[in-house]
Amino acid sequence: MSELAQAEAPSARRRFKAGAAFVDGSYVPIDEARISILDTGFSRSDLTYDVVAVWDGAFFRLSDHLERFEEGCRRLRLTLPYERAEISSILIELVRLTGLRAAYVETICTRGVPEQGARDPRALENRFYAFAIPYVWLLRPDDAEGGMDAIIAHTVRRIPTTSVDPTVKNFHWGDLTRGLYEAYDRGARFPILLDHDGNVTEGAGYNVFAVVGERLLTPVSGTLEGITRQTILELAEREHIPAESTQLSEEEFRGASELFATSTAGGVMPIVSLDGEPVGSGSIGPMTGRLRDLYWQAHRDPRYLTPVDYPD
Amino acid sequence: MSELAQAEAPSARRRFKAGAAFVDGSYVPIDEARISILDTGFSRSDLTYDVVAVWDGAFFRLSDHLERFEEGCRRLRLTLPYERAEISSILIELVRLTGLRAAYVETICTRGVPEQGARDPRALENRFYAFAIPYVWLLRPDDAEGGMDAIIAHTVRRIPTTSVDPTVKNFHWGDLTRGLYEAYDRGARFPILLDHDGNVTEGAGYNVFAVVGERLLTPVSGTLEGITRQTILELAEREHIPAESTQLSEEEFRGASELFATSTAGGVMPIVSLDGEPVGSGSIGPMTGRLRDLYWQAHRDPRYLTPVDYPD
Repeated sequence: MSELAQAEAPSARRRFKAGAAFVDGSYVPIDEARISILDTGFSRSDLTYDVVAVWDGAFFRLSDHLERFEEGCRRLRLTLPYERAEISSILIELVRLTGLRAAYVETICTRGVPEQGARDPRALENRFYAFAIPYVWLLRPDDAEGGMDAIIAHTVRRIPTTSVDPTVKNFHWGDLTRGLYEAYDRGARFPILLDHDGNVTEGAGYNVFAVVGERLLTPVSGTLEGITRQTILELAEREHIPAESTQLSEEEFRGASELFATSTAGGVMPIVSLDGEPVGSGSIGPMTGRLRDLYWQAHRDPRYLTPVDYPD
Repeated sequence: MSELAQAEAPSARRRFKAGAAFVDGSYVPIDEARISILDTGFSRSDLTYDVVAVWDGAFFRLSDHLERFEEGCRRLRLTLPYERAEISSILIELVRLTGLRAAYVETICTRGVPEQGARDPRALENRFYAFAIPYVWLLRPDDAEGGMDAIIAHTVRRIPTTSVDPTVKNFHWGDLTRGLYEAYDRGARFPILLDHDGNVTEGAGYNVFAVVGERLLTPVSGTLEGITRQTILELAEREHIPAESTQLSEEEFRGASELFATSTAGGVMPIVSLDGEPVGSGSIGPMTGRLRDLYWQAHRDPRYLTPVDYPD
């Protein structure tokens, strides 16, 4: 390492410690990462995004996340300005800059910034943004409650798939935010939304699972096809646990012996109360515990990992 | 005027000619107006906004727009960091900076930027942004078609009010953007969306009206309560034109003798074709023309106006 690089390295690490972003082709500290107020990713929420975790110095299922991200772009007719290999390199560089061994890494593709007064989204040059920040826990492992206090929201329903496609990961969180406020008003923190037919969909950034009899069930529609959700379904199959993505009525969900949520931001998180009543024993159940262990063990499976080559 | 001010004035006008924005307490040229990539106004579309027009050097119905904006904030439990009089002053200053006599002026209040990893929207300091750019026409008066070529979208339905409240002006445009692409695919430019019961709601940034028999009808629900829409209803009442906001079925809408759209960005705009078929005569109808004239005449009514005191 040159003297200059030696001198700069610690200051660079300080600059990027809180996070690093890739904006308009440059790497900047997260606190300086800004997008144009005219970007239709903001003013029309016209975008898709993805979040991938870095755990113990390696990306987990990076190619699966990038495949979903690219598929979301295709469905919205967004053209990514970078190839997959370039995006991987950018994400790795972001994590290298921060030095974080556990990180929350987000990619975003927006429709872009219109010329003055222009309305036609087809004319826009689509934009790519990314950032890496310290790993985010929806439910911290040291949470005093030991699990999620959830509610089934009754003031709001999930945006239907006939309006916005939930499998294209999006920032249309108006319904989820209403659900969050309802949860707070009812003394809880984690809303779960029903669709307009009364079936369970998902929560504010997490998929949900229910153990009903011997079976593990998760909603099949009206929900993001989460990668963590997918990992759980794969692990269940490997372990010969009967699991199914299916329509899940509110009644079935309420009758479950165990409930848990899944998210890249926290993995497998037990739901220990629903509408103020304990779920099962009121603490993490055996199936949830087993799947949580398997989930974190999978983070040592080389097939799932893309290690980061950190600078010295 | 001091020599310095004389020297600076033309350069300031050049800097702000394309538009001016108020961001983080400062006035900046529109091209430099940026928001944090972590603002939940972006990452959760957690915000409300409003758009008011400046026409011939005066704001049109400024207090009505700001009242709706404040009401939207209340419903989302957002706290505006400025009082109404301060916001008015900011908007006037933005227009003064640009020198524009016809402008599109937007106010935005977002939930704000979370501390690292924080998820609770209640903890955030809400943010106010605003900008003024040259007046935007959804349909230019010199448009060769002379009116809107509209479709009724059949690939997408308007986000229901049970999910996102459309009377709180928002950037949840996923359904409207899908409608725009469907319109383009079908050789038109202006989608109109139905709700899940098959009633007409609104388009991508505009309310709609239908002349059915002797009556002027506009959807009562599932739609923004547009100020231009309100102005038309008030003008109709004053002129003794029977007008009503009501449920408007697709069938009634298709049978109308005249259709038009309303928006702050363009005023009253005739819809001259629907799904490729001419509406009425296929050009602007008598009721639409009359209301368009009355609408622009109202822009000279001092009760509606807040004049801008432009610098010399």
